[in-house]
Amino acid sequence: MSLITSWLESANAPDTDFPLNNLPYGVFSLGGAPGRCGVAIGDSILDVAALEEAGVLSFQRTLTTGTWNAFMALGPAAWSALRSELTALLSETTETRAQVEAALVPMAQVRMQMPFRVSEYTDFYASRNHAFNVGSMFRGPENALPPNWLHIPIGYNGRASSVVVSGTDVRRPTGQLKGPDDDAPRFGPSQRFDIELELGAVVGTASEGPIDIRQAAANIFGYVLLNDWSARDIQAWEYQPLGPFQSKATATSISPWIVTAAALEPFRVPTPEREIELLDYLKEDGPSLYDIALEVAITPEGGTEQVLSRTNYREMYYSAAQQLCHHTASGCPMRVGDLLGSGTISGPDRESRGSLLELSWGGKEPIELDGGTTRSFIEDGDTLTLRGAAEGNGYRVGFGACTGKLLPARG
Amino acid sequence: MSLITSWLESANAPDTDFPLNNLPYGVFSLGGAPGRCGVAIGDSILDVAALEEAGVLSFQRTLTTGTWNAFMALGPAAWSALRSELTALLSETTETRAQVEAALVPMAQVRMQMPFRVSEYTDFYASRNHAFNVGSMFRGPENALPPNWLHIPIGYNGRASSVVVSGTDVRRPTGQLKGPDDDAPRFGPSQRFDIELELGAVVGTASEGPIDIRQAAANIFGYVLLNDWSARDIQAWEYQPLGPFQSKATATSISPWIVTAAALEPFRVPTPEREIELLDYLKEDGPSLYDIALEVAITPEGGTEQVLSRTNYREMYYSAAQQLCHHTASGCPMRVGDLLGSGTISGPDRESRGSLLELSWGGKEPIELDGGTTRSFIEDGDTLTLRGAAEGNGYRVGFGACTGKLLPARG
Repeated sequence: MSLITSWLESANAPDTDFPLNNLPYGVFSLGGAPGRCGVAIGDSILDVAALEEAGVLSFQRTLTTGTWNAFMALGPAAWSALRSELTALLSETTETRAQVEAALVPMAQVRMQMPFRVSEYTDFYASRNHAFNVGSMFRGPENALPPNWLHIPIGYNGRASSVVVSGTDVRRPTGQLKGPDDDAPRFGPSQRFDIELELGAVVGTASEGPIDIRQAAANIFGYVLLNDWSARDIQAWEYQPLGPFQSKATATSISPWIVTAAALEPFRVPTPEREIELLDYLKEDGPSLYDIALEVAITPEGGTEQVLSRTNYREMYYSAAQQLCHHTASGCPMRVGDLLGSGTISGPDRESRGSLLELSWGGKEPIELDGGTTRSFIEDGDTLTLRGAAEGNGYRVGFGACTGKLLPARG
Repeated sequence: MSLITSWLESANAPDTDFPLNNLPYGVFSLGGAPGRCGVAIGDSILDVAALEEAGVLSFQRTLTTGTWNAFMALGPAAWSALRSELTALLSETTETRAQVEAALVPMAQVRMQMPFRVSEYTDFYASRNHAFNVGSMFRGPENALPPNWLHIPIGYNGRASSVVVSGTDVRRPTGQLKGPDDDAPRFGPSQRFDIELELGAVVGTASEGPIDIRQAAANIFGYVLLNDWSARDIQAWEYQPLGPFQSKATATSISPWIVTAAALEPFRVPTPEREIELLDYLKEDGPSLYDIALEVAITPEGGTEQVLSRTNYREMYYSAAQQLCHHTASGCPMRVGDLLGSGTISGPDRESRGSLLELSWGGKEPIELDGGTTRSFIEDGDTLTLRGAAEGNGYRVGFGACTGKLLPARG
């Protein structure tokens, strides 16, 4: 597939995340006004709430709700319809062009808000390299993968109330800490605060009961970049026997743009070959991952940005469709706006690891930054940024940045 | 404290769960109409939505929303005000009596709905006898309690979408199963489906950042009975390393009535003496448990009801206030309608265990039922019922029943 050209020149630039092929959905605010549904196109945002109000789009009281949940709830036929209508409005010079131009807002002027209301948030553990790295650190490479890992897309429920949009500062958490040699736990600021580079799948279709694997992908509306901030020291002490809890509850940042499954369609790639055959309910009938290049960068306070890692969503062992299918296997109802984190995405090399825990190997091999400083975990004032894009022929379908700055712990 | 008498005679009966001292909040439906906020009193429900509409109460557009969330969001001053107004309307024979009588609906005629919209659901593991019993079965009595148990009110995030009101049938779940001697997992119906007798705390006050232990109790609006249906065989295979997931996602049933913290105030009792001193952030400055007698009963299909276990909420090691405090320690925002399950409540004796797993000791000591049948876990067609009440001087503050029938797995 190649670039779909727009009369809006900035949408045709080869380095924009937002060509007409993309059309990702977000919520923007101008000068502190309430959030409005918008679509990124080149260097601008198309105020689709205004277009709906003006009767230019075939929707009513949906895009004016300040969140994309109501639109998602309309279902796949509506998803296709809006994409077609927007493509026509922005590619052809029609009689509506003046109206459309009047609804364009420069991206540089807005503040982005949460693109959707997160119903519930689930986080998975489904990149094999990540699971192997973490398991190796704690149990040695022979016992790295838990016995269920090759059978189950392992997941746990996270906390929806802690999901924030890119640009929101994150406060270093406090919690119970106990090192392996400490006699007793103490309460204090986390000293091993980390990121997790993930992709989040946004569920667009509500369901009751188990979802068949052949249906699962169609229930996913789109994807966001996702940084699952993690306090490794709180996690190490709390997580047995019921899993991570407060170590994961401080914040999870997402990109302001939902890139739709429709926009990612040309970039489908298969899940990797299975070492052990999956049970039938998890067997996919087509390629369900995407070729999306991902990176993590760090900017120390007052310093310059530096990329720490580059990886790809195709490194996943389980797809979002498989995760959704497993999530509902025992009857769990899903709702519009459920968010499924892929799990940390790590590639096979040191330079493709998706967390500082892996990059610094638990702090034993600190990462060297430009200017001679090092990092094992995040320091106060550091800004962490995720980026991601699928690369087409002369264009890219990108997510924009997912960024957050770490503030010191409460005094 | 003694009975507050009402002009409604059924509210003065010594065996009613709903004297004037109680005034629990629920949502009822008459003849399939949309749900309405109501208050249980004796054998009736007071249609407080109708009283609000009639201007008898000092609230507007709050009790007519079909859920108690909007009322909870008004905060503690409003909580006290409504309780005072209802107490006056039902205890004194005022000029409004005819209006109040007209708003009474016989409880036998209604169908109860969810009393509130669950924002997020967290389940804890905070009864020492339960943790000891389960730990003994899996690791032996010497290693029964995990090393963090006496320091942390251990919890994990559950699934709000799976919370249902009493009376909702529950479908036996399917999932991945692997016995200790099986070579590989298989997919099928759970064979070890269980209940967990719990009390759920309903968060009534939203918060950002850590909640001080001295504030935590005041943020809890009230309590419900809670049955955390659990598939033990799915859990055994899935829960390492990130905790229970699909084993807990089938359903969690709650009582239709929220008994307010105000109604339970006379029944406060302290948490037990600590074997190990708690960290300061978890130290309570007053009694924060309640003396609430609890029981579990089973009714086989076509059979008669039989009590399996009797226990008490005072058996908890950690209170809901301590759980809420810990829940927010690393910065987790809480919202109105968050639900915190206490964790299975087991007493010290065999007859006071809060799950079939414990009652049948993992299936090794099946429970004998009247009529010569036995149970290790729940069988299709069984109805499980939780009941609970605090016993006052000549009156009881009860929750009504929390019941659910197990349907066979999907065909």
